[in-house]
Amino acid sequence: MAAVTRDTCAALDAADALAPLREQFDLPPGLIYLDGNSLGVLPCATAGRVQDVIRREWGQDLIQSWNKAGWIDAPQRVGDKIARLIGAAPGEVIATDSTSVNLYKVLSVALASVQAADTDARRRVIVSERDNFPTDLYIAESLARQHGFTLRLVETGEIAAQLTGTAGDELAVLLLTHVHYRTGRMHPMAELTAAAHAAGALVVWDLAHSAGAVPVDLKGCDADFAIGCGYKYLNGGPGAPAFLWVHPRHLAQAVWQPLSGWMGHAAPFEFTPGYRPAAGVKAFLCGTPSPIALAALDCGLDTVLAAEALGGMASVRAKSLAMTELFIALVAQRCAGHGLSVQTPADQALRGSQVSLHREEGAYAIVQALIARGVVGDYRAPGILRFGFTPLTLRFVDVWDAVEQLLQVLESGEWREARFHQRAAVT
Amino acid sequence: MAAVTRDTCAALDAADALAPLREQFDLPPGLIYLDGNSLGVLPCATAGRVQDVIRREWGQDLIQSWNKAGWIDAPQRVGDKIARLIGAAPGEVIATDSTSVNLYKVLSVALASVQAADTDARRRVIVSERDNFPTDLYIAESLARQHGFTLRLVETGEIAAQLTGTAGDELAVLLLTHVHYRTGRMHPMAELTAAAHAAGALVVWDLAHSAGAVPVDLKGCDADFAIGCGYKYLNGGPGAPAFLWVHPRHLAQAVWQPLSGWMGHAAPFEFTPGYRPAAGVKAFLCGTPSPIALAALDCGLDTVLAAEALGGMASVRAKSLAMTELFIALVAQRCAGHGLSVQTPADQALRGSQVSLHREEGAYAIVQALIARGVVGDYRAPGILRFGFTPLTLRFVDVWDAVEQLLQVLESGEWREARFHQRAAVT
Repeated sequence: MAAVTRDTCAALDAADALAPLREQFDLPPGLIYLDGNSLGVLPCATAGRVQDVIRREWGQDLIQSWNKAGWIDAPQRVGDKIARLIGAAPGEVIATDSTSVNLYKVLSVALASVQAADTDARRRVIVSERDNFPTDLYIAESLARQHGFTLRLVETGEIAAQLTGTAGDELAVLLLTHVHYRTGRMHPMAELTAAAHAAGALVVWDLAHSAGAVPVDLKGCDADFAIGCGYKYLNGGPGAPAFLWVHPRHLAQAVWQPLSGWMGHAAPFEFTPGYRPAAGVKAFLCGTPSPIALAALDCGLDTVLAAEALGGMASVRAKSLAMTELFIALVAQRCAGHGLSVQTPADQALRGSQVSLHREEGAYAIVQALIARGVVGDYRAPGILRFGFTPLTLRFVDVWDAVEQLLQVLESGEWREARFHQRAAVT
Repeated sequence: MAAVTRDTCAALDAADALAPLREQFDLPPGLIYLDGNSLGVLPCATAGRVQDVIRREWGQDLIQSWNKAGWIDAPQRVGDKIARLIGAAPGEVIATDSTSVNLYKVLSVALASVQAADTDARRRVIVSERDNFPTDLYIAESLARQHGFTLRLVETGEIAAQLTGTAGDELAVLLLTHVHYRTGRMHPMAELTAAAHAAGALVVWDLAHSAGAVPVDLKGCDADFAIGCGYKYLNGGPGAPAFLWVHPRHLAQAVWQPLSGWMGHAAPFEFTPGYRPAAGVKAFLCGTPSPIALAALDCGLDTVLAAEALGGMASVRAKSLAMTELFIALVAQRCAGHGLSVQTPADQALRGSQVSLHREEGAYAIVQALIARGVVGDYRAPGILRFGFTPLTLRFVDVWDAVEQLLQVLESGEWREARFHQRAAVT
């Protein structure tokens, strides 16, 4: 790539069809926010919408709002919007609970499904990546322990070998996060799903760093189950409801998932003592939904769905790749000799919407020094400076300015100051 | 009781030390809301507080708020406020997830605890009431099925017999809702807990209709586990986070509950692949908490804790009993001959903060006709008109006026109109 200037970046912004989408957000002035992969920014619509839910729907209409404001159907209504982003059909997705709780539900059902089919009990292994996001591993560990399965954690390069031969014969469920939280590496979903199916196993995809960030085609990939997060690229707000999807072939009969709360009952308002699961994905609901949290998530989804008129996730993806490509090029061009290496794959097909840099020394402090300068990324051990690129809110000049600030932090050595080395409770 | 007039009620209001607490709420003008046992009313503070969390903490400070605004500790901080209402100590309660999900966690641990101690596998029965709130039964049914226990559902009058003799020897866990959602009957918590312990069993109390409604003394009763709801008498808003409490004796060693998500890990931000439960009740956290929902619940709790300066839950209880007693007396005095009977115990020691009336014919339609007149109660099959009395928001004249409207609905026969017979999705 020829040497890039800030003017080059400004020209890219001027030509960017997605640029108007930035106006949907209430962004802190001057801040370059490269952490939308941790917590998405605030849409302009959210505060007013939540006020209306609180003041009118709750405050004035009170319990009537379960019917009148459609609170009762919100998990499905919001789920239908998510479906449009992940290659699922209406009625297949619900927005509810947390990602961890939703994984517990779908992985339980996946294991039960394998156990029912595998009468000679040969398939008793769940395979995942050793450095998958820990909560997924903790939930899988819990279920493996409960149901007599083994959780086998392997390195990324060892996954393929788990899908063939003896290992493939033992494989019950392949549990992967589509885009890796730390490195930004993206798995080939269609290929791995097909290989796991060929081995006779089921696949659960965690879309925490994919939904709203990269095109996802669950049905096209013939996946089995998926879960994901509402507060990252979907801009649903801190602790937003998560989501889950189940392929219809696993819903041909009503499913009894272990968190069989009343909202997943076939007739919750009959108040009968025996559980009878609802038809379809509704059986994966558990307790009473939060209309306030679902309204905020709905506003976040609208910001992503606004891209549909501008080419949809394909356009978002094109801009995301242009941005990560630009960032990688600028770091190489301007920060050479400062000990930074790129952890995210150079192959665009294997890259999510983030770039992770590695530095042997001072990575945590460099991130803190950047934050002090108004460039927000985050740190992940060991030695990783993580930068998320959300095409809905970021400009190409922001990428330029971020690298400029990074360069200044490195050249000034200011990151060596003690204040940048203090660890917070949440990192 | 001598015949009561509206003036008698007005005099009671004039003498009511808790009357100023009503000013904490944003109540719809003219509405008499007798459904705070289903969804508590909106505190004046909530909308502004949630706006601040959304606009400033999320919108401006973004991920910094996990540390700066204390988002990460909110489940414990809010839990500590709940502890003050239920006879628990700071650090013993967390506010998180839904009541159903929390029951799954604590009942799992209770069953595992029994299994570990009961080496000859004699205790394999969970006892609950047949008409306990269904979601509790559905969760218990799921866990019984998973772990090889039997869920034995009995009538209220049969509970005592389950705690002695052969039945007592088989009893693993007694699972009861303290105040019955439909009838308003309250169990003697101390007595039943002692009897279950004498039988060698553990006790799980659901405080959905107790917390903030009646005095609860979990430690004084030596209970084992409790769960409860944030959106009823705690005024946390629709779908508010629920809570759970675990007696410290069950936390002497770190507890691995099945929903072992990252927030319950001993060191979530070390991102290690193996689960290691946090010490104490924190191990019962699972996914990422919702600071927005917890802020709303916090505002709701403040409205209840405001009673502490006015005698606390003892004063709240005294007013609640005065109100339910008044309602029962007025129904007897004014609605005689209209086929209403009182389902809630006449014995105050066995009465929660609600009164349930029964009518053979038209109960659903009568409730709808009352709502049309601005008196909001709700219907529960079969034939029950349910009225909750929340002493923080209600006046004694409201009780008078509610009975007056009930009388008019009955005398006019307007409830026979077709429009009052249409069933909504949520009842």
